[in-house]
Amino acid sequence: MSEECIENAERITVETDLIAGNLNKVNLLNDILKPRKEQNSVFLILNQKIKLSKRLFELIWDRFQIKICADAGANRLYHYLKSEDDRARYVPNYIIGDFDSIDEAVKDFYLKHGCVAIKQTTQYSTDFSKSINLMSLHFNSRKFHAMLNKKLENFGIPLESGIHELYDAIPVEEKSSINVLAIGAIGGRFDQTIHSISQLYTLKHSDPYFNLYYLTENDIIVLLLGGANVIEYDMGFRNECVGNCGILPIGEPTTIIESHGLKWDVKNWDTSISTGKVSSSNRFVGIDRCYVNVKDDMIMNIEVDLIKLQKYIE
Amino acid sequence: MSEECIENAERITVETDLIAGNLNKVNLLNDILKPRKEQNSVFLILNQKIKLSKRLFELIWDRFQIKICADAGANRLYHYLKSEDDRARYVPNYIIGDFDSIDEAVKDFYLKHGCVAIKQTTQYSTDFSKSINLMSLHFNSRKFHAMLNKKLENFGIPLESGIHELYDAIPVEEKSSINVLAIGAIGGRFDQTIHSISQLYTLKHSDPYFNLYYLTENDIIVLLLGGANVIEYDMGFRNECVGNCGILPIGEPTTIIESHGLKWDVKNWDTSISTGKVSSSNRFVGIDRCYVNVKDDMIMNIEVDLIKLQKYIE
Repeated sequence: MSEECIENAERITVETDLIAGNLNKVNLLNDILKPRKEQNSVFLILNQKIKLSKRLFELIWDRFQIKICADAGANRLYHYLKSEDDRARYVPNYIIGDFDSIDEAVKDFYLKHGCVAIKQTTQYSTDFSKSINLMSLHFNSRKFHAMLNKKLENFGIPLESGIHELYDAIPVEEKSSINVLAIGAIGGRFDQTIHSISQLYTLKHSDPYFNLYYLTENDIIVLLLGGANVIEYDMGFRNECVGNCGILPIGEPTTIIESHGLKWDVKNWDTSISTGKVSSSNRFVGIDRCYVNVKDDMIMNIEVDLIKLQKYIE
Repeated sequence: MSEECIENAERITVETDLIAGNLNKVNLLNDILKPRKEQNSVFLILNQKIKLSKRLFELIWDRFQIKICADAGANRLYHYLKSEDDRARYVPNYIIGDFDSIDEAVKDFYLKHGCVAIKQTTQYSTDFSKSINLMSLHFNSRKFHAMLNKKLENFGIPLESGIHELYDAIPVEEKSSINVLAIGAIGGRFDQTIHSISQLYTLKHSDPYFNLYYLTENDIIVLLLGGANVIEYDMGFRNECVGNCGILPIGEPTTIIESHGLKWDVKNWDTSISTGKVSSSNRFVGIDRCYVNVKDDMIMNIEVDLIKLQKYIE
């Protein structure tokens, strides 16, 4: 089949009969930034300076069911907040990690304010992986919550890798879907950025009930699954907050089988980082959705204006 | 052959007989950050906020033979410098682009201070590619310099894609090696970051006489060529300025055939983003070098302390 690339008008209708069937559907606002109230949701703070506006931070914080700091992410949260009142108001539900890099004073402050701090020393999993296991336990394990009520050192959770063992014991059928918005995953040391991107691929295969999204200073980063994906949005939100986007073959060279609703739509379009053939600086022109069918998992970034975004989360 | 991963001591000798033959050799200081005086060298400023310390900026500026702003990179330079004196002291040799996003006042200021501004309107190449072609003309084309002396609109260079045409006319044998350090390539919108990474791969194949390096707030990013690579450094510099590193299979899944001089050295080690098997949070333990033999081109990032770095560039 021949490759095609067509330039669309600025606003087009993406027909719904194209997007029936087995779809990976994600709504920019209601899945990623402002998850529905009944949806299990986690705001995850990784160890990078927090650069959100205070207002956006507060809005996101209040919108997510639980908040987790991965190890020294707790330092970042503590120092991002300037007053004792704010620090006592925005207390994470959990801190988890080997606690090598968290400040003692920060840990003590959050412990005093009701945070659950779980130490896990294994070097065979990252703070990120420990956080993911913890999330699943929080939403899916009664046994875990029973342990948290015990007055034991580290709640009776083995220090080495107890969280991981408890996690492995959860029956698969009891794992309900969890939406995670993480900050501090992208934009630091470059191997950490790529490690975070790698997590998007691996988590979807090891734990497909997780929907993991990254928020950076500039964009939202999501995994497109091999097959049909639909990105939905409200027209006003798109017009006001959404900028450029890219469809990035980071895992391996692959093919965009078909897209509908991009400024530059493609068909049977081979794409690869090392050849330089990558759909970047593209944008959504579909009125309320964009359809992307890809041969293999790919990464999509969607530029968002973090200031204008605020009013859509209120 | 079986995969190996061994943990080394903190300081080991990397034997020289391992690293004979056809090598891609790069010295962190004398090739990337502080190129030898006789080496053609370019400091390229792309369109992102400049975050270098003033002192480091000055040291790098003075060390590179020519300075180029890619289009609105000129706005970033202008606003990074706070005084008129500084702005008049740090004038780029060239500004190139379609001039859609550069401020008129900024362009006028630099023109008045002797900068050469070349307009190129084609949308089929990026400001980055235009800059690359310009560099080659600067170092390799007498005809180009003769044109710059003419008092013609845009120096008689066709506005659409004259730079590209002039570039194509340079005989291959006259292209001498050029070392480029670019800032503003990584850390902005994520599709732009990945586009920049893609440029490392494609430039090395389209124009192998270019050595392109990126400097970010956190690290240096280089391309490892398929085959044997040696990263050299002075021991003091490594001890004081160099942190973690990663060897990143961004273009495609590949194999690290052998490494010597990393904390975690590997042999016949398959690596891929989508499986999550990636050498990150590694570090140099070779006393003065690190050897990495890779099956295909890969990306390496090397964490550097930008403050401690200053004294090594002085």
